[in-house]
Amino acid sequence: MVTKKEIAEYLGISRTAVSFVLNNVQNNKISEETKERVLKAAKELGYKSNEAQKNICFILCNRELNDSRYSLLMEDLEGLISEIGYNLMFMSIKTPSVISKLENFLERNEADGLVVTGLLDEMIINALEQSGIPFVIYGVIENEKVNIVTPDSERIAKEAVQYLIDRGHEKIALFSGRLDLLIHRQLFEGYKKALEENGLPFNKLLVQVINQESGYEMANRMKLLEIEYTAAFCVENVIQFGVLQGLRNSGLEVPGDISLLGYGFTDLVKLSSPHLTTIYFDRLEAAELIVSRLKQLIADKNTPPRKMVLDCIRFYNGDTVGFIKNNGE
Amino acid sequence: MVTKKEIAEYLGISRTAVSFVLNNVQNNKISEETKERVLKAAKELGYKSNEAQKNICFILCNRELNDSRYSLLMEDLEGLISEIGYNLMFMSIKTPSVISKLENFLERNEADGLVVTGLLDEMIINALEQSGIPFVIYGVIENEKVNIVTPDSERIAKEAVQYLIDRGHEKIALFSGRLDLLIHRQLFEGYKKALEENGLPFNKLLVQVINQESGYEMANRMKLLEIEYTAAFCVENVIQFGVLQGLRNSGLEVPGDISLLGYGFTDLVKLSSPHLTTIYFDRLEAAELIVSRLKQLIADKNTPPRKMVLDCIRFYNGDTVGFIKNNGE
Repeated sequence: MVTKKEIAEYLGISRTAVSFVLNNVQNNKISEETKERVLKAAKELGYKSNEAQKNICFILCNRELNDSRYSLLMEDLEGLISEIGYNLMFMSIKTPSVISKLENFLERNEADGLVVTGLLDEMIINALEQSGIPFVIYGVIENEKVNIVTPDSERIAKEAVQYLIDRGHEKIALFSGRLDLLIHRQLFEGYKKALEENGLPFNKLLVQVINQESGYEMANRMKLLEIEYTAAFCVENVIQFGVLQGLRNSGLEVPGDISLLGYGFTDLVKLSSPHLTTIYFDRLEAAELIVSRLKQLIADKNTPPRKMVLDCIRFYNGDTVGFIKNNGE
Repeated sequence: MVTKKEIAEYLGISRTAVSFVLNNVQNNKISEETKERVLKAAKELGYKSNEAQKNICFILCNRELNDSRYSLLMEDLEGLISEIGYNLMFMSIKTPSVISKLENFLERNEADGLVVTGLLDEMIINALEQSGIPFVIYGVIENEKVNIVTPDSERIAKEAVQYLIDRGHEKIALFSGRLDLLIHRQLFEGYKKALEENGLPFNKLLVQVINQESGYEMANRMKLLEIEYTAAFCVENVIQFGVLQGLRNSGLEVPGDISLLGYGFTDLVKLSSPHLTTIYFDRLEAAELIVSRLKQLIADKNTPPRKMVLDCIRFYNGDTVGFIKNNGE
């Protein structure tokens, strides 16, 4: 590998001049001509700057980048970190099969900081901790030893259900994800609290577990089981959209018969007709918090770990939530 | 920055041993214990490998990563290049406002190769060419001086329209994107050729330009203008999905009244109810071709530029295309 010294010798100029040019030092007295000669020589000789290389790696665990929640976050992160002189790397990790990919990457020490999201497990967290590279986890996990930026899921569900109650709904279903995941237990807690605070009964039948593929099935499940409800809080846009289609195909109107409030703000919200009504976190605010936290950790590796809670809640007023019709009208 | 030599001195072992460990040289006679000591010291002293750092950057121009066409490609690329020891970087470029971001990145010479996609312009191509870094453009552009991997759009449209003709359709609309873009002119050519080869008349009224947001409007436009058609080839999943919703909201059945064939295979295909019927290119085959071409260019920078045409066409048999009803039945 060619060094700055060799470039200087090759061009017959000082090592300092070469350094100034290659390190992009501003306000120096090097002529444009010299600058161009240095850059040309560096390119021809295959010079690779080491000092300049500053990378942050976005590590997605056990999830697909094609999920807009992650691609949107990644896009925001790239914009923010490029402004402070970093490149963004991307790595997709599936455990347990390919943990070695992560371990090898960490061992090569090629990133100055990491943003880790998706579905994490102990194996991943151990590898991250052992690497000594500063990292921020974005998501819902419980671990006091690491840095986390987390949405306040309980509050999201509470405000979502309150939004429906404010529109006259009392029989409100929760279309939840797997309850072995912390995020869904937190959403469930928020759901229950909102009912409690409003003096509404909690009906177990109204909590139904569902996955991304079965929103459609959900609509039929409620019908078959004859579970009465006038509104549902759906924990994902994809689920909400599936339920919407399922309801309409079985002859029910949204929001005429059933109101649907979803969590998230992906492209589906506006692709859907009617637009989905949703509650979500301000994305950019989340990305900014992640980046500022990571900068802090890179600057001082001894910063004590902390959980930071996002509370920038927003509503998108689509057309899937309506006021309940009074019986008298 | 600490060097291998310094690590060797610090541990009192040979420079070669350190090199072997840090460069991951296999089959050497270094004990596990020494290996661990070297890795530990490298970590503690903040050693950063230069030689090992091999990066390919995925550069997305004037498009959003949130568009699954790009996030899916990126995910495939990451998988393929990590297998051959590269990291994937990601950069989003919007011209003309932030071309300097690209120029600065290229000047720092931090990537060994580039995959560039999205909506490219001359400014971007010039910057890429001047960088001297090997790059492959994935998309539909005309430029004989650069390396391109391109889908055969004309063939896609031709086969798509043939698929509809084979199901008895004669009045086939083309719901096209902006005709100032090469890709849409190529699709248009394929559309015309298929009609011609089947002795069907070409009716200008059946070619309607549309954007991602107006699939819904499209359905109403055809009705208002009283343009008769029984099927449409939609140049994108998002457009197809919008048209589907627009048609159903205006009381038409898909595929009962109108058949819709789309181009692409994003998540929408299966999220939609009914599933979208589409024609598309095998993604992985495209990603493999891009990576193998880029490897070739990195290995030999003097490889003459070439356009490589993808022809791995597939159909997804959703439920939006039907056979035309015979008048007699």
